[in-house]
Amino acid sequence: MIVNMLAEATEEQINHVVERIKECGFHAHLIRGEERTVIGVVGNSDKHRSELEALTVAPGVEDIVRISHPFKLASRSCRPEGSVLDLGKGVTIGGNEVVVAAGPCAVESREQIHDVAASVARAGAKLLRGGAFKPRSSPYSFQGLGLEGLKLLREASDKNGLLVVSEVMDPSQVDEMLPYVDVMQVGARNMQNYHLLRALGETSKPVLLKRGMSATIEELLLSAEYIMAGGNYKVILCERGIRTFETTTRNTLDIAAIPVIKQLSHLPIVADPSHGTGRRDKVAPMARAAVAAGADGLIIEVHPNPERALSDGVQSLYPEQFSQLMGEIRLIGSAVGRKIAGEQAMKVSS
Amino acid sequence: MIVNMLAEATEEQINHVVERIKECGFHAHLIRGEERTVIGVVGNSDKHRSELEALTVAPGVEDIVRISHPFKLASRSCRPEGSVLDLGKGVTIGGNEVVVAAGPCAVESREQIHDVAASVARAGAKLLRGGAFKPRSSPYSFQGLGLEGLKLLREASDKNGLLVVSEVMDPSQVDEMLPYVDVMQVGARNMQNYHLLRALGETSKPVLLKRGMSATIEELLLSAEYIMAGGNYKVILCERGIRTFETTTRNTLDIAAIPVIKQLSHLPIVADPSHGTGRRDKVAPMARAAVAAGADGLIIEVHPNPERALSDGVQSLYPEQFSQLMGEIRLIGSAVGRKIAGEQAMKVSS
Amino acid sequence: MIVNMLAEATEEQINHVVERIKECGFHAHLIRGEERTVIGVVGNSDKHRSELEALTVAPGVEDIVRISHPFKLASRSCRPEGSVLDLGKGVTIGGNEVVVAAGPCAVESREQIHDVAASVARAGAKLLRGGAFKPRSSPYSFQGLGLEGLKLLREASDKNGLLVVSEVMDPSQVDEMLPYVDVMQVGARNMQNYHLLRALGETSKPVLLKRGMSATIEELLLSAEYIMAGGNYKVILCERGIRTFETTTRNTLDIAAIPVIKQLSHLPIVADPSHGTGRRDKVAPMARAAVAAGADGLIIEVHPNPERALSDGVQSLYPEQFSQLMGEIRLIGSAVGRKIAGEQAMKVSS
Amino acid sequence: MIVNMLAEATEEQINHVVERIKECGFHAHLIRGEERTVIGVVGNSDKHRSELEALTVAPGVEDIVRISHPFKLASRSCRPEGSVLDLGKGVTIGGNEVVVAAGPCAVESREQIHDVAASVARAGAKLLRGGAFKPRSSPYSFQGLGLEGLKLLREASDKNGLLVVSEVMDPSQVDEMLPYVDVMQVGARNMQNYHLLRALGETSKPVLLKRGMSATIEELLLSAEYIMAGGNYKVILCERGIRTFETTTRNTLDIAAIPVIKQLSHLPIVADPSHGTGRRDKVAPMARAAVAAGADGLIIEVHPNPERALSDGVQSLYPEQFSQLMGEIRLIGSAVGRKIAGEQAMKVSS
Repeated sequence: MIVNMLAEATEEQINHVVERIKECGFHAHLIRGEERTVIGVVGNSDKHRSELEALTVAPGVEDIVRISHPFKLASRSCRPEGSVLDLGKGVTIGGNEVVVAAGPCAVESREQIHDVAASVARAGAKLLRGGAFKPRSSPYSFQGLGLEGLKLLREASDKNGLLVVSEVMDPSQVDEMLPYVDVMQVGARNMQNYHLLRALGETSKPVLLKRGMSATIEELLLSAEYIMAGGNYKVILCERGIRTFETTTRNTLDIAAIPVIKQLSHLPIVADPSHGTGRRDKVAPMARAAVAAGADGLIIEVHPNPERALSDGVQSLYPEQFSQLMGEIRLIGSAVGRKIAGEQAMKVSS
Repeated sequence: MIVNMLAEATEEQINHVVERIKECGFHAHLIRGEERTVIGVVGNSDKHRSELEALTVAPGVEDIVRISHPFKLASRSCRPEGSVLDLGKGVTIGGNEVVVAAGPCAVESREQIHDVAASVARAGAKLLRGGAFKPRSSPYSFQGLGLEGLKLLREASDKNGLLVVSEVMDPSQVDEMLPYVDVMQVGARNMQNYHLLRALGETSKPVLLKRGMSATIEELLLSAEYIMAGGNYKVILCERGIRTFETTTRNTLDIAAIPVIKQLSHLPIVADPSHGTGRRDKVAPMARAAVAAGADGLIIEVHPNPERALSDGVQSLYPEQFSQLMGEIRLIGSAVGRKIAGEQAMKVSS
Repeated sequence: MIVNMLAEATEEQINHVVERIKECGFHAHLIRGEERTVIGVVGNSDKHRSELEALTVAPGVEDIVRISHPFKLASRSCRPEGSVLDLGKGVTIGGNEVVVAAGPCAVESREQIHDVAASVARAGAKLLRGGAFKPRSSPYSFQGLGLEGLKLLREASDKNGLLVVSEVMDPSQVDEMLPYVDVMQVGARNMQNYHLLRALGETSKPVLLKRGMSATIEELLLSAEYIMAGGNYKVILCERGIRTFETTTRNTLDIAAIPVIKQLSHLPIVADPSHGTGRRDKVAPMARAAVAAGADGLIIEVHPNPERALSDGVQSLYPEQFSQLMGEIRLIGSAVGRKIAGEQAMKVSS
Repeated sequence: MIVNMLAEATEEQINHVVERIKECGFHAHLIRGEERTVIGVVGNSDKHRSELEALTVAPGVEDIVRISHPFKLASRSCRPEGSVLDLGKGVTIGGNEVVVAAGPCAVESREQIHDVAASVARAGAKLLRGGAFKPRSSPYSFQGLGLEGLKLLREASDKNGLLVVSEVMDPSQVDEMLPYVDVMQVGARNMQNYHLLRALGETSKPVLLKRGMSATIEELLLSAEYIMAGGNYKVILCERGIRTFETTTRNTLDIAAIPVIKQLSHLPIVADPSHGTGRRDKVAPMARAAVAAGADGLIIEVHPNPERALSDGVQSLYPEQFSQLMGEIRLIGSAVGRKIAGEQAMKVSS
């Protein structure tokens, strides 16, 4: 931490800051420049950190600059070689293979989920996604089938050799979901629901943690840290688009977050081009872009009949579009030295 | 809802859209322009709304425009005269009085909270704010005193004739908090924690609902709708700053949200200039601005010794600064025809 | 400037950075912490600054933190008491008086501009605003009356004892405009048109510099620095709303920029609630908020018949609304110890 | 255009709107829904469009929805097959080939520009980029070599069989630059400098138009329209990153803008991953992502010695990194069916 004094700071103000730094258990290191003095804070205690931060508005202080990242377990330096997580049934993520999860926004019926499961498995997906508990911005929208939905998901996944990823919205659902789900998804709106993060930290189930709509990359990694601080190191990060002024797409998929996270953290990072764009016809180019930029996986909405979907129909692919997309990303994957399950595909459509 | 067809849409595509509109139980109303056709959707059912939305990417469709607001109970037309909510002990919000809540970010000790309570009561605050359960972005930061903190809050409030407002983070805390708290606060990070909103909708306790850092005003009103749909109409909205590219202040306090919400909704709206700016020296001008723009209340962080606060010391006022601020907003309040508790103050400092 | 080395940086990498700092003519000051080394750069030369910045991606470097502001002439420390600018006809800005400019978006006809001038003068405005050269995002929109518009502006202003503020879009217009205009306005889209800024720096005419839609406060002050570096110190800054994700208002008026700029710079700062909100019914509350937060002036669109305006009709006030607004801000001004021209007004409307 | 009346609008208010629509030369088409009335405006005149827009705040109106795009010549429907632009020396853009421009931020010396030109030509670039006139946010930074720089650029390009792309900042530079430059670049800060756009519209030189930092895609296309309205149809659009709250990268490269623009417009679209990320180590993954998403070209900063560059050293590639990148995008290009000049490369580095 560096305390940046104002050019007009008095000796008394500088001394006050130095005193406070010592009282908090750190060493103060002065650099007297031609224009101003800056004070380096040396030491390594979390205990009085917030008191240090309060110096930001002490008399004579211009601002305070933090120089180390606030996350530890999630940081690259903690595992420089990167994490390869075992999701079960022989599927690992974070290694050479690009892993694809696909399925409808919400489980709607046995027929629907079995249909989708069969087609996405055939196309090369390794996980079946589908919501049983749905976070909806309106209380009047379809809220999901609940436990019944989980059972259908499990059944359809097992029949097609897939793993299940589904969203958990509240700590009270965790135990209920564990038997049915292979990867617990935390949605963007819950990225900073700390009770939920802590509850998941106490399980040993892999967690897919989506970036909040306005969360910085650092905040995403701090939320991962919450889960890891509880002992569960199986966290998969997910870029799903951030909120910006551009309204042509539902969100702005921050593709650069992929290489940035690869540098800052050892955790696998996947992309969600369905929520990231919000429009069916933009999913394929953004899925290709994510793989080209180094994503470890994708999560994609597929529905047998998007025009009649109970949610997110606008951004769901038809099964045949998904199959076409898998062919495209297989080609991109091979261009960046990554493998993707399934047979080699035809040429990319323009 | 208006379906905007592409200029090049075929008759077949137009007919398909019309058919789907009818199948969803609505009437279709065609307007054939010189360049393109638009289709008005007439009817009033929530049932197939998501299927209608899926038409956004149907062949020949450019986009779909929603023309009514998705919230109802929270909308101005539901109570055109505005809501005046009774918070207890004779304090009402939404009427002529501008109501001020003040206190520390977190309850730290009996001495601290009693000190603050006495000084903010003296200055004219009607509610004591203070966190017992703290949402912290780092798992390594101070997380609050929990139940013990609530008891201290209650004690200090009662002694000084104040009401208590404190943050609830999880549905599991609701019952525990009810005896100690007069207003339940939902933090910005939990604005779309629907389980929490529903749990609060089942109580009859007033709720202070903070706008999420990247939530639109419409989304804030939809979250209020979740609480109201459960039967609890006592919702106070709170503008606390949105996330933008500007980093000089911690957030950008969207003052315009105050008159916009006054127009769209009947619910009271307060402002939080402490989180909205993140710096002690910017709290007073933004508090004045909020009252000048029509806010029904303010929530302000005050700490007896901000430099040693366990959290948010940077943005907490000293008690004497808060007292000075109350004098200023009393003058502003009187300029806009509003009353604020406490004796008349001296001139505003520049 | 502080160079923040990675925890795993080698001695060789640290030495390389130190060498480069010396080669650029600065001193290097090492602080060896428990986790990492940071290097303070001491010295005061602009010459090799960009080479220093290139160290950001040198091996072993995490990042570089700038600790001084890049603007000088515009900084508060350059004139701690604040600038009071003389605009002519006895009008000064930056002192105790809140100065109001008002008028139509564009000059449309002699009758229109004379009508507006008379009514805004009567209500207490000191400057007449009006566009003769209009920056329009579509090439098919009304582009202004040009020189003819300037002459009409001058005529109407002189008749009513007002000063003229009008937008200059290109260096080639500067000479042509000088005889007719008292304050040259630089629009948000041209805030970083450096040729224009330099051309204005060579005149002695006051400049009203609008903040770009996505410009940080620091960038605004750097643009002011361009004008001042040429010798023209008469710069008035203008907050007119920034672009955010919120779409209820046309822009998000960043009221906090007012006290932030007051702290960072000695230049006067005014607010434009017309462009800042984009809707007539939101102009008054935001004008009040700006004055409450410390603005030195306001610039407001007024049109005798907004429904038939050739541009910005949506956000233009009717003359009687402007007169009512002047009454309101006179009350707010007096609450914050500022004077505003004109007779005292009635109560603020709710 | 659709006028959306409030639920509580009176017949008189509806009639007023209908009257105004007729007075402006359009037809009004009423749709009476169960909750409210909406009015379709049919007709095709630009003349009274701004008067129509002023109805947004007419009594009884909730808002107005525009349903057609404001750009025409730039729209896809104007040339559904897409534009293939001839840049000279046999290079075309918008067709099957992905065209790469590379070179330093600024021309600094004959040796520097000749070095770079030789190396980027060898690696497969078709254009040499380099600034002679530099827009710098600080007046104290290096401002470019001017005309001398242009001559050096031309010389180095010709020697290596490259075309020249360089930035024009002001209408007064256009004539001076024409003999030396093959593609005139308009920088992000000048995207809405309408005088400059019009001046370029009067030439027949291809223009590379960069998206402004906070410009919507629609605004970018409107700026293209300005150039095209003057008769110059050779416009290449460039996505170079938008400003968001995320600060890890200098800007957020909006990769989705590539497929969105492909759908809305017939103009070629290229990406600038150097400015889009602002860090050397993020350029390659984002360049790959852009090509995977369908970009028609790339513009990339390369410097023989980035650590000593006079500007943008942080984001400039070393020549050998650029050569490696060309190999990578050749593989990605072939995966999406596009050709890129130069010999086939080795495997992509992870």
